[in-house]
Amino acid sequence: MAGSELNKLWGGRFVGDIDPIMEKFNASIGYDRRMWEADIQGSKAYVKALEKANLVSTSEMEDILRGLDSVSEEWSKGTFEIKPGDEDIHTANERRLKELIGDAAGKLHTGRSRNDQVVTDMRLWMRNAISVLKNDVLQLIRTMVERAAVEIDVLFPGYTHMQRAQPIRWSHWILSHAVALTRDIEQLDEIRKRVNVLPLGSGAIAGNPFGINREFLREELCFDAISINSMDATGQRDFVAEFLFWSSLCLSHLSKMAEDLIIYSTKEFSFVTLSDAYSTGSSLMPQKKNADSLELIRSKAGRVFGRCAGFLMTLKGLPSTYNKDLQEDKEAMFDCYDTVHAVVQVATGVISTLKINPSAMQAALSPDMLATDLAYYLVRKGVPFREAHGCSGKAVVLAESKNVSLNQLTQQDLHSASPLFDSDVSAVWDYTSSVEQYYAPGGTAKNSVTAQIQHLHSWLTKHQK
Amino acid sequence: MAGSELNKLWGGRFVGDIDPIMEKFNASIGYDRRMWEADIQGSKAYVKALEKANLVSTSEMEDILRGLDSVSEEWSKGTFEIKPGDEDIHTANERRLKELIGDAAGKLHTGRSRNDQVVTDMRLWMRNAISVLKNDVLQLIRTMVERAAVEIDVLFPGYTHMQRAQPIRWSHWILSHAVALTRDIEQLDEIRKRVNVLPLGSGAIAGNPFGINREFLREELCFDAISINSMDATGQRDFVAEFLFWSSLCLSHLSKMAEDLIIYSTKEFSFVTLSDAYSTGSSLMPQKKNADSLELIRSKAGRVFGRCAGFLMTLKGLPSTYNKDLQEDKEAMFDCYDTVHAVVQVATGVISTLKINPSAMQAALSPDMLATDLAYYLVRKGVPFREAHGCSGKAVVLAESKNVSLNQLTQQDLHSASPLFDSDVSAVWDYTSSVEQYYAPGGTAKNSVTAQIQHLHSWLTKHQK
Amino acid sequence: MAGSELNKLWGGRFVGDIDPIMEKFNASIGYDRRMWEADIQGSKAYVKALEKANLVSTSEMEDILRGLDSVSEEWSKGTFEIKPGDEDIHTANERRLKELIGDAAGKLHTGRSRNDQVVTDMRLWMRNAISVLKNDVLQLIRTMVERAAVEIDVLFPGYTHMQRAQPIRWSHWILSHAVALTRDIEQLDEIRKRVNVLPLGSGAIAGNPFGINREFLREELCFDAISINSMDATGQRDFVAEFLFWSSLCLSHLSKMAEDLIIYSTKEFSFVTLSDAYSTGSSLMPQKKNADSLELIRSKAGRVFGRCAGFLMTLKGLPSTYNKDLQEDKEAMFDCYDTVHAVVQVATGVISTLKINPSAMQAALSPDMLATDLAYYLVRKGVPFREAHGCSGKAVVLAESKNVSLNQLTQQDLHSASPLFDSDVSAVWDYTSSVEQYYAPGGTAKNSVTAQIQHLHSWLTKHQK
Amino acid sequence: MAGSELNKLWGGRFVGDIDPIMEKFNASIGYDRRMWEADIQGSKAYVKALEKANLVSTSEMEDILRGLDSVSEEWSKGTFEIKPGDEDIHTANERRLKELIGDAAGKLHTGRSRNDQVVTDMRLWMRNAISVLKNDVLQLIRTMVERAAVEIDVLFPGYTHMQRAQPIRWSHWILSHAVALTRDIEQLDEIRKRVNVLPLGSGAIAGNPFGINREFLREELCFDAISINSMDATGQRDFVAEFLFWSSLCLSHLSKMAEDLIIYSTKEFSFVTLSDAYSTGSSLMPQKKNADSLELIRSKAGRVFGRCAGFLMTLKGLPSTYNKDLQEDKEAMFDCYDTVHAVVQVATGVISTLKINPSAMQAALSPDMLATDLAYYLVRKGVPFREAHGCSGKAVVLAESKNVSLNQLTQQDLHSASPLFDSDVSAVWDYTSSVEQYYAPGGTAKNSVTAQIQHLHSWLTKHQK
Repeated sequence: MAGSELNKLWGGRFVGDIDPIMEKFNASIGYDRRMWEADIQGSKAYVKALEKANLVSTSEMEDILRGLDSVSEEWSKGTFEIKPGDEDIHTANERRLKELIGDAAGKLHTGRSRNDQVVTDMRLWMRNAISVLKNDVLQLIRTMVERAAVEIDVLFPGYTHMQRAQPIRWSHWILSHAVALTRDIEQLDEIRKRVNVLPLGSGAIAGNPFGINREFLREELCFDAISINSMDATGQRDFVAEFLFWSSLCLSHLSKMAEDLIIYSTKEFSFVTLSDAYSTGSSLMPQKKNADSLELIRSKAGRVFGRCAGFLMTLKGLPSTYNKDLQEDKEAMFDCYDTVHAVVQVATGVISTLKINPSAMQAALSPDMLATDLAYYLVRKGVPFREAHGCSGKAVVLAESKNVSLNQLTQQDLHSASPLFDSDVSAVWDYTSSVEQYYAPGGTAKNSVTAQIQHLHSWLTKHQK
Repeated sequence: MAGSELNKLWGGRFVGDIDPIMEKFNASIGYDRRMWEADIQGSKAYVKALEKANLVSTSEMEDILRGLDSVSEEWSKGTFEIKPGDEDIHTANERRLKELIGDAAGKLHTGRSRNDQVVTDMRLWMRNAISVLKNDVLQLIRTMVERAAVEIDVLFPGYTHMQRAQPIRWSHWILSHAVALTRDIEQLDEIRKRVNVLPLGSGAIAGNPFGINREFLREELCFDAISINSMDATGQRDFVAEFLFWSSLCLSHLSKMAEDLIIYSTKEFSFVTLSDAYSTGSSLMPQKKNADSLELIRSKAGRVFGRCAGFLMTLKGLPSTYNKDLQEDKEAMFDCYDTVHAVVQVATGVISTLKINPSAMQAALSPDMLATDLAYYLVRKGVPFREAHGCSGKAVVLAESKNVSLNQLTQQDLHSASPLFDSDVSAVWDYTSSVEQYYAPGGTAKNSVTAQIQHLHSWLTKHQK
Repeated sequence: MAGSELNKLWGGRFVGDIDPIMEKFNASIGYDRRMWEADIQGSKAYVKALEKANLVSTSEMEDILRGLDSVSEEWSKGTFEIKPGDEDIHTANERRLKELIGDAAGKLHTGRSRNDQVVTDMRLWMRNAISVLKNDVLQLIRTMVERAAVEIDVLFPGYTHMQRAQPIRWSHWILSHAVALTRDIEQLDEIRKRVNVLPLGSGAIAGNPFGINREFLREELCFDAISINSMDATGQRDFVAEFLFWSSLCLSHLSKMAEDLIIYSTKEFSFVTLSDAYSTGSSLMPQKKNADSLELIRSKAGRVFGRCAGFLMTLKGLPSTYNKDLQEDKEAMFDCYDTVHAVVQVATGVISTLKINPSAMQAALSPDMLATDLAYYLVRKGVPFREAHGCSGKAVVLAESKNVSLNQLTQQDLHSASPLFDSDVSAVWDYTSSVEQYYAPGGTAKNSVTAQIQHLHSWLTKHQK
Repeated sequence: MAGSELNKLWGGRFVGDIDPIMEKFNASIGYDRRMWEADIQGSKAYVKALEKANLVSTSEMEDILRGLDSVSEEWSKGTFEIKPGDEDIHTANERRLKELIGDAAGKLHTGRSRNDQVVTDMRLWMRNAISVLKNDVLQLIRTMVERAAVEIDVLFPGYTHMQRAQPIRWSHWILSHAVALTRDIEQLDEIRKRVNVLPLGSGAIAGNPFGINREFLREELCFDAISINSMDATGQRDFVAEFLFWSSLCLSHLSKMAEDLIIYSTKEFSFVTLSDAYSTGSSLMPQKKNADSLELIRSKAGRVFGRCAGFLMTLKGLPSTYNKDLQEDKEAMFDCYDTVHAVVQVATGVISTLKINPSAMQAALSPDMLATDLAYYLVRKGVPFREAHGCSGKAVVLAESKNVSLNQLTQQDLHSASPLFDSDVSAVWDYTSSVEQYYAPGGTAKNSVTAQIQHLHSWLTKHQK
């Protein structure tokens, strides 16, 4: 028997050697070691439950707990040594425990399977990851709301289809992105509920044969509930899939914001300037200052969704219960966590250090953006909107054909579009007045935007511990 | 101006002709007509709000309401005629309204944009779709729970990695799939909350300029809340993305169940026989009876996830607010709805008519599946599990090398694996006793499975209106 | 037996009824009818091979051929009537054939299975589809090349990271997109080779039991080769997967071009104006002219890739040979074909009617875009590029700090960046000279761009029949 | 200026500090260091071209070449030290070169940009990766073909829809998978052509301003052709996308084979037994021997397609030329390479060590699998196949209702299905004769399978160097 076989958990069974490529292919220790703390946490709870069920003595329990603490310390200090045969974090920790405390270590796995162990570890790990990410996203929202409050008086063009549509407040734009992120937080809270369900005590497939006290385990590990069915508990990875999709949707929000800012930071728009801290230069062109941070943010939506797609595809058509295919869960989970964690922090940095150029923003407002207001002028005189829209459209065409801006049309010009245009039409050509029309909830008038800010302040207070 | 241009909403603006391929490419009437009812529902509420805001007179409102009812009736009866220029359902309905009631129809769109209109329609439509799907899935769960209750005494092999693992109850298998579906219902309820938010009154981007009473609209259309920011409201399709992913995860559950059943219905397993109603034959081989229903169920997880992937990719990197790219939302939404609706009903039919073959199931239980119990025998005598696992493993190898089944090993054989094996080891070779060990919550013992059934009964009662 | 059962191909086998939802779920006639012509074409060849193998008499063959021609005519004229029980195009055509010519029709399927029949139909259909798409893409390339030839003297800013990088020719931009499309054509040709392999004569799984002359079938149906293994032939859909991916990559090229043009058509850039034929207006804002065509083009890359993702996911983990899951192949194939066919034609229309605004393009060239040239000035004086890049960078910073453009720095200013800057540095500030430096193959100098045009002309000549 | 800024390539430009999270987020050295050899190879060719263009002197060239060799040696020996500020492999190598040879190193990047440098490196790297993978796949095919030749006389059930369909040769099954892999090789050869195109000399966007001899570079680096357009050359990653999809399709083939083998290795089928070298045990159940290798193979199709999906999504809607989003290309490329490399080798190991169980295979053949042959018996007597299929179907029903196997029906029984059944029908019940009917090319008769083997032998000879 090869040396590396000696520590295999199923030691008594195999007589052949394993292909080294297969061994590497099979091993997960390279990445699942990240869960060392969760693995020890789960084992500590489990040995306490074993003691309650009289499967280990109190002194065995104490030995095991002490041993696990030593293993934990080695990991913390970076002195834990991975050895050949440590194919995963569970094997590694138990192997080390045995080295430290001897044969009693062999009792720890009583009635437990790696099938329920690994998914307990993952849920513990993800519960923590979710807290971190929630904090990251809350910090970003807070930054946005604060910025929106400060810059509420800045107007700039609102675009639809990337064409100038109507004047809006810059803060309205900021908040449109903040609001999307509040949905991400709400979903994350919901996912957390489903993550925080204890699978330990489900064994390999059939359950736990020693009547282990799962309620005790739940309390010990601070789970909200225990899993209902052992086959489902060990064979499902819905919480991973949900998390991967959450990451994708969250980053699709930031990819949208990044796209806006990339365009706004072109020379042609010049609405915003990125801080040097979030830009990079060119190895060739000395004048270049590239919004690399924003491009990376934009790109990562693809990356994390790729992880989601890959994992869903791996799940598709799998039979019930644990199959080794599920091992694809962890790298996807880690990568999405790392990516979202970085992206959100970088986005927060970008937003908090971005310089805006209010004069360029103001200069980009053009009278044709008030064509709708011109129609509304007629609507207020009783003209059906469709007809008013047509009249205003005629004025637009006329201005184009005369090569003047819309507000430079003469009274006579406007009469040709509709006889109802009077001299008071000149009041239309005021961007602030235009914006202030949108005072209905959700609109871009100052009171509406202020109400959004207040709403988000309350929401933040509620969601922060 | 081409004939088909005449009814375009932006009639006053364009002078050129449109490419017919472009016209077809651009039009959504081919599929968004499915939302005719939601569109009319939204318009009826909107005109009432316009009347409250004095933008239409009471009699104009009544004309419009009556007209909309007539349009509705035409759709119901299948007599509504789509005309050239009806590029989408909104245009079609308004065009018809104008034919029916004249120019007053032109007031309906006052302060509204297709941007807030279309997303209101979609949310109304999806709210209804979610109700239907919830009902479908509840019906499937109910069928499974009932079946599990009836067949609770049937044992068969539990598999991990598709290898015989431990004896379990057939009902435990059924419930493992039912439990997954309860998570789908919980997620669907959460999505519904986010769907049921009113965007109407957000205009094209900036909000509603006539101070429309959005709270009134909300009540009128039975939404739970109003959207917070007009740019977000008109430019986001998160609820669609969430729904597409929900469909994917739900069908990944059914793809897993289908895979199990396809394997169980092979001649080699022969555990289950599909009803003829859910099987088809071969055009070539007279003896064939294929589980086409299950294969289709399995396949559809791919289809709906493809829709999700496609839509997420379309969203990636889009700038803020409405861009025509978002038009991809509807076909994806409809297709996922139709697919899940069909799949879940077919799955219900399959499960309710499936025949099981308890004797084949029983015959597939083999003594090697009790090797863990052999180890537990030693554990109960104080042997650490790791050592016990090794001893049992030796017994397995021995049985294989002697070409006998595990329970045919002699006392002496077993002694060579561990001296602690006594004559009472024979009690291990009982499948029912083995199963009954797993009485901890979530396990496969009868009391545990019964508890699962009771839990699901209560859960069903809570989730059914 | 229900009426709809009567025409089922496996008529003799079933005694139960089929669930109507299941029947609809199972049926493919709703979409596979598109392959009616290929189905008849394949059957005509097959009956000739049967006759050669003495499995039908010459007069039976003639009856069947005549009957198939009649069926074909009904499809052409739109008079073919689909009846209950016609679950797919193969069943429908054979059912109709039998109505027309009687029992001899029952000989057509001898030794054939729907498994080899359907994939033959698909390959015939796709062969034709590929020809159409190749033509579409060639037409688009031709349009681009012609346009590039005409507008070769127009300069505008080249962007990297959406920041102004270096002056380039507008034609260089056009050709960068054309070149990507030439790769699409090359791949399409390669896919065609793999599509054009005859599976007919593979039966359901084992092959053809009557020694049918597959070489004859191949010639009759103009395939390049015959499939090598019957299990692979009937169970693989690689050619579909390849086509779906091809569609995705091709449309990702057009999504890139569309993104550029959407940005170039913003008011802020104003480099291009879309023809009215490819724009639409706003239902709310009279001044809006939206580049809907480009947004749709951009979006469709998502749609088709979704089809690819969905189908790959459906394929993942399927067992060998025909499984009903494969039925997902056709809708994906049709949708990608339709989408690419429309997108490429619309893109051709957009490119051929686009107006460019050379003065806005020229105006967007700014001296800082020549900072690299400033560095090259020093390089030509022997300064290592890294050092020269640093000096030019200092000049850029200086210009920014003095709030002047780079070419307005005084001789003294430049000296502070590098003492090697002499009075002849003024020659640097010429955009045309700058562009003309890039005469190496692939560059943006006039001779290089002309060489690209010539290259593409030859390439087009080679690829057009 | 922070220390880590000092080595940035755009040293002269920035005055602000960089966020450390941003710095890490931006850096690619963690993974692109894998391309160190390609990077040096490209630089060596480039400096030779610079010398030819008189941009470096001969002695500078020699210094640079010697320096690059030293850097290369450090990498080979594992002594290369990455320093803060080495954000990517290009920066790291050049920084080190400068340390080794001084300022002349600063001439190496003359007229080159990281935009053309990185894509040159990638193409060199991938060219090599493709060779390795091609070899891996060829080895797998060879193993399969050899195995097929040896085991040609083993019969077993062919399945469609996972139901027993017709008897086939085991070798026919093996070859069905080998044939799929030959398509993978053909596609890989095609991709290689598109990979092997030189982008160097394209600069950042506009081309090379010093008339560098790209033809010389091409020869020096053994590329087949030079890129046509500098914008396309630096901004496209089609070759990566193609490679990611190739990986997906290739692994979807192996996921199919793995699925078959997983099912065949269940106790219920017992057709095959995996070598211990490719199996693992259970931490809980001593008797378990799991086909982990096959499950991992099956799962990886999901993983690599996820990479493909992620990258395509990142590409979607990107503007032209280099954007930092493209940095997602490398991890995807490396991961797919590593995964396919491992999977194919493991699959080769599995196939070469698999034990088959011919008696279990034989025992799984059942008379109902000859129902088609029963129909063919009638066809050979002139009965139209449809009618014959019906008669055989009746016999199947009759056998089921009498609970006997099909070949146990009496002459009288068969008469009731069709009066044409005579005593010679007994000849039908021979599996080998049945198989031998399928002698048409591609079929499962011995001569046909032998022909496939010969075909693949020739093909292998052609594809091996």
